[in-house]
Amino acid sequence: MYDVIIIGGAAAALTAAIYSSRRAMKTLIIAKSIGGQAAMTDVIENYPGFLSVGGIPLMNKMLKQATKSGAEINFEEVNSIDEISKKNEKSIFNVKTTAGSKYKTKTVILAYGKTPRTLDVPGEGKFGAKGVSYCVTCDGPLFNGKNVAVVGGGNSALEGAEYLSKICPKVYLVHRRDAFRGFEYLVKEVKSRKNIEILYNSAVKEIKGGNSVQSIVVEDFAKGGTKEILVSGVFVEIGSVTKTEFIKQLVKLDQIGQVITNNYAETFYPDSEKIRPGIFAAGDLTQTPFKQIVVSAGEGCIVADWVSKKKK
Amino acid sequence: MYDVIIIGGAAAALTAAIYSSRRAMKTLIIAKSIGGQAAMTDVIENYPGFLSVGGIPLMNKMLKQATKSGAEINFEEVNSIDEISKKNEKSIFNVKTTAGSKYKTKTVILAYGKTPRTLDVPGEGKFGAKGVSYCVTCDGPLFNGKNVAVVGGGNSALEGAEYLSKICPKVYLVHRRDAFRGFEYLVKEVKSRKNIEILYNSAVKEIKGGNSVQSIVVEDFAKGGTKEILVSGVFVEIGSVTKTEFIKQLVKLDQIGQVITNNYAETFYPDSEKIRPGIFAAGDLTQTPFKQIVVSAGEGCIVADWVSKKKK
Repeated sequence: MYDVIIIGGAAAALTAAIYSSRRAMKTLIIAKSIGGQAAMTDVIENYPGFLSVGGIPLMNKMLKQATKSGAEINFEEVNSIDEISKKNEKSIFNVKTTAGSKYKTKTVILAYGKTPRTLDVPGEGKFGAKGVSYCVTCDGPLFNGKNVAVVGGGNSALEGAEYLSKICPKVYLVHRRDAFRGFEYLVKEVKSRKNIEILYNSAVKEIKGGNSVQSIVVEDFAKGGTKEILVSGVFVEIGSVTKTEFIKQLVKLDQIGQVITNNYAETFYPDSEKIRPGIFAAGDLTQTPFKQIVVSAGEGCIVADWVSKKKK
Repeated sequence: MYDVIIIGGAAAALTAAIYSSRRAMKTLIIAKSIGGQAAMTDVIENYPGFLSVGGIPLMNKMLKQATKSGAEINFEEVNSIDEISKKNEKSIFNVKTTAGSKYKTKTVILAYGKTPRTLDVPGEGKFGAKGVSYCVTCDGPLFNGKNVAVVGGGNSALEGAEYLSKICPKVYLVHRRDAFRGFEYLVKEVKSRKNIEILYNSAVKEIKGGNSVQSIVVEDFAKGGTKEILVSGVFVEIGSVTKTEFIKQLVKLDQIGQVITNNYAETFYPDSEKIRPGIFAAGDLTQTPFKQIVVSAGEGCIVADWVSKKKK
């Protein structure tokens, strides 16, 4: 029987594990892999404490802190959580994985983040941390002085293009449709920038390069045909997916599948204002508008701190 | 004219500066010193990314990140903030310091934390990071297996004593009064622990030692006289002070002087539900119940992210 099972392997989950194990709670981390979106980033310059650090080394350091304090980790994928009994008004949960393992726990922390949508085109995987990025906020400054492309038509893509236009000579904004889905002021701003070239009705078909990205092949649906554009970076800003389908019976989700929480990282029963005892959530799978490593880490601390207080 | 002036020199302030300067906002940090409460800690083991790091080195790394991205820093003490004009519905503030400097800015981020109350007894300063601590959560695990004293009678002192009783052979709880001011369940828990010795009506008069703390001299007000008790650590948990008197005309404070904020780190007008444009707050001087470095850093990120979005 664990005091807490933490599902996820990146900043929110690992920080929660550091704090819960230091509070002498029996802690198990269940994660498919370590690092989440942070692991897709080669150079992180905005995590406080490091002038520059790789995503994978940073996440491995957090893991080491957690295991040093006594947290266990199993590399598996959780596919069900069931409330099996109540004892003195406290819930007990059964957590099962696709590999067939079963674990009992008094509390569950959901902290497995989001997965960015990918383009699924040749070259995207190959240039993973070598010019292809899924986060302008994280990686934008590394492309200072270089030509780049942003793919997408929502606020993230528009904000990304606007920011990059300040530090890059030329920004190509590649969008599948003929109009944007973002805020009007952002659309206006992007259209007013002389060094942003908008490619409407267009999609990236291939990403090419040597050691890193050198060009993209773009198809124009309206006019027909493709052209190759020289860029050093491609920012894919087409949204992300929260895999919360399997917990929708347990906790309240918003329209895009994010877990709804209060300031104390507590969750709610589905279609209810009532707090769901025993299940907590932190990091990018919640509604936080600030999807940054240090924000997730802060939330991981808050959730573990609160779980340890509630336990008493 | 600055885009943002950040008041404070620890995790919340420096992280805000990292993010605001990376967003190409003209940023000035004004701080009396670097590090805040973190700088009082010799060994930090719960900041994610470092198995062990000194408080001062960690804070200096954050400062370096901020200045590398373009943030400026002046070591001064702010003593007034005035709204001097509104331009297109946006405020402009005059920030003055005790040294007589004046700075103009479009936004202000309040992030100068809290100051722990001290005992003001001989030895307290000398053994600053050598056995005297103001945070059980931060430093408790470093005293595993050692005898310690906790000073105070509120929830922090009680929680601290309860936690330490699990990892230390003997815990002395020194309290000025004959009853506690904490939660009933905590008081019960502390009284039930056999290795916690409660010294009521008592105060620490001196902290003694060689290279680090070796004993405390405790006076008993009720019985009279003093005795010396051998301990390796003294945790002073007698509350902290938020110096917000000089901004009470500007923003809404709670009963103990903490700045009230919403989820976006925005402040409110005094005695009002109306958001105060241009003034934001993050970290320990707000109402967050989680006074940890990584939580403050996360809040510093949120505030800077939001300021940069609001600016547009």
